[in-house]
Amino acid sequence: MDYRFARRMTCAPPSFLDRLFAVSKDPRIISFAGGLPATRFIDVEGIREAAARVLAEDGRDALQYSTTDGYLPLREYISRRYRQRLGLAIPPEQIQIVNGSQQCLDLVAKIFLDRGDTVAMERPGYLGAIEAFSLYEPVFRDVALGPFGPDIDEFSRVIRDARPKFFYGIPNSQNPSGQTYSPEARRAVAEVIGDSDTLFYEDDAFGELFFDGKPRPPVAGLVPDKAVLSGSFSKIIAPGMRIGWICAPPTVLGRFNCAKQAADLHSNFLCQKILAAYLETHDLDAHVRRIARAYGENCRLMCEILDDDFPPGLSHTEPEGGMFLMVSLPPGLDSHRLFEEGLRKGVAVLPGTPFYACGGGESTVRLNFSCMDAEQIREGMERLSGVVRALLP
Amino acid sequence: MDYRFARRMTCAPPSFLDRLFAVSKDPRIISFAGGLPATRFIDVEGIREAAARVLAEDGRDALQYSTTDGYLPLREYISRRYRQRLGLAIPPEQIQIVNGSQQCLDLVAKIFLDRGDTVAMERPGYLGAIEAFSLYEPVFRDVALGPFGPDIDEFSRVIRDARPKFFYGIPNSQNPSGQTYSPEARRAVAEVIGDSDTLFYEDDAFGELFFDGKPRPPVAGLVPDKAVLSGSFSKIIAPGMRIGWICAPPTVLGRFNCAKQAADLHSNFLCQKILAAYLETHDLDAHVRRIARAYGENCRLMCEILDDDFPPGLSHTEPEGGMFLMVSLPPGLDSHRLFEEGLRKGVAVLPGTPFYACGGGESTVRLNFSCMDAEQIREGMERLSGVVRALLP
Repeated sequence: MDYRFARRMTCAPPSFLDRLFAVSKDPRIISFAGGLPATRFIDVEGIREAAARVLAEDGRDALQYSTTDGYLPLREYISRRYRQRLGLAIPPEQIQIVNGSQQCLDLVAKIFLDRGDTVAMERPGYLGAIEAFSLYEPVFRDVALGPFGPDIDEFSRVIRDARPKFFYGIPNSQNPSGQTYSPEARRAVAEVIGDSDTLFYEDDAFGELFFDGKPRPPVAGLVPDKAVLSGSFSKIIAPGMRIGWICAPPTVLGRFNCAKQAADLHSNFLCQKILAAYLETHDLDAHVRRIARAYGENCRLMCEILDDDFPPGLSHTEPEGGMFLMVSLPPGLDSHRLFEEGLRKGVAVLPGTPFYACGGGESTVRLNFSCMDAEQIREGMERLSGVVRALLP
Repeated sequence: MDYRFARRMTCAPPSFLDRLFAVSKDPRIISFAGGLPATRFIDVEGIREAAARVLAEDGRDALQYSTTDGYLPLREYISRRYRQRLGLAIPPEQIQIVNGSQQCLDLVAKIFLDRGDTVAMERPGYLGAIEAFSLYEPVFRDVALGPFGPDIDEFSRVIRDARPKFFYGIPNSQNPSGQTYSPEARRAVAEVIGDSDTLFYEDDAFGELFFDGKPRPPVAGLVPDKAVLSGSFSKIIAPGMRIGWICAPPTVLGRFNCAKQAADLHSNFLCQKILAAYLETHDLDAHVRRIARAYGENCRLMCEILDDDFPPGLSHTEPEGGMFLMVSLPPGLDSHRLFEEGLRKGVAVLPGTPFYACGGGESTVRLNFSCMDAEQIREGMERLSGVVRALLP
């Protein structure tokens, strides 16, 4: 039978993820292609205790329906943490719980984008955002992201000329590039946004994971009325609970709440309570420091091997945090060929093309460094180096 | 600042829910307005044990990212239960886990509805569906729902003339009316659907809750290629875990999966595993029988009081299951006045108007009978009867 699907479904970019998932299950392949946080840093024992406490003391409430905005003590924790870490005053009333930051991507797009509206983002930009936004049939514009942030001339021009409904960016340790906006770039971006009617959608999934442990102040703090800011517990506690949040000005949050209610009433209440109970009794700072230190060591190792053992003509970003870096391949080397050939030699990389909303990226690959140990990185990078050498013209 | 929201946000019906939630927290008010399953039937102890087992034996996996389609053993359980309860052959590959049935409403609308497309549903119809569909800017058509199902002449005419992308219905103990399609109505609906290019979207949130314990065969079983069928653990186990599912033909499920991935990657994996572990060791049939028996007693009591103690000119539906019944008020009595006056006298009802996608319902109210005991029902109905009498012209 011919199903009469909506036109928007033809806008969905072809997904690479099924292929990737198969790769991640193959024990012969060392995968730098995925995006999982390190399983060894998930505090299963702590979460087990928190779950037992919630279900013993407060089970009936935790298992019943709840409100769309989310569990107040959890929103209060997030609010306090913004104040303590970043000096930001974001009251709990301006915070709403969602199913991981991915749901923010869907719902922010839903409340702002009509078909044909312009949305702008970084080049390269986050694949999950491109997938979510595409289903609202927007026109994409992109702005080159460099080692210090977006190209400010291009950014101003795009904001001024295309008047995007919002600009989506990840100023801290971006996925896929690992790049971080400099303080100057943050101010410059905020200034352009302040003079425009474009919102800044700041995705801060990685802001807790700077290798030096120092926070970087969000752009949203400079333009609070013109920004939405999302965060997530997925990278710092556990992705399987699917708990993230959004901060937004009251008018925006009201519409967001309406869309969230229509989407799924509210996020998993049991896990919101478990998370709040866990955070009450655990030192998140110490936990996050351990993760960031380990990721930093992995990242440095990977960069050293790229610098020392790979052929010239290849370059890479130098992340200050997060879970990813991006490699630009020597001329003539296509990332999809590298992907296919890598699989045959037991190493997986993620071709950069799905991160380019407006096309491009054929000579880039994303490498993940969060979920393996030094030995696997050495072995995987040796395989990859061999593949690169073999493919070079 | 003026935010440039998408046009769709002007299509959101005004939500009654905040007002309702305030009402539900006021101890002086007996509320028949809500829609919660009875908290006393949530097996907190069983879920606590299942959670402890999952987190002790399988915690790292349960807390990591997972696949969009959902936890296979849970989908296998759902598949087996369809076979055992209803004789339906729905393989796990045609089942996908979602955040409660509400998320199906959003995602089915998302994959089928372009702006201006027609969607059809029952009159009255489920409020949450109207809210979810509205954001895709469709044209609504509705079909009168009677004690035996939709008016078949009207149903045929709407399907033939308006060619809706899908017809959304709740054949078992509908929310809000409590009505159930007769076997004849199911066959007649399936026949019309079979001759059309309209899908039947069958929401079966209440099919386990027939007071007589007997299953009714879904319409989807008669037109498997032209139906999507959703179910939920919210009404039979616990809503706070937000776990439901959808069954759909492979082509439809592929698009649904794409939309689900863009929406939030996957549903809470920890709770999927907890639920699967719980179902492994607990007798769902016995549990569901206890719930249905209690709801049946409440429903009969409420109907008796409506028949015996309310003024003539008022009528009500006679549910065979579920959690709701609908009252038609005597001429001249407006449901919103009854709502406001009821609050003053300590009893809350839900005016019917938000259940009418195309307008109407001013003289109807929905009454919930799942979440209170006999004493509360007697007391609340006495208050309500007094209010009705006082308001009659």
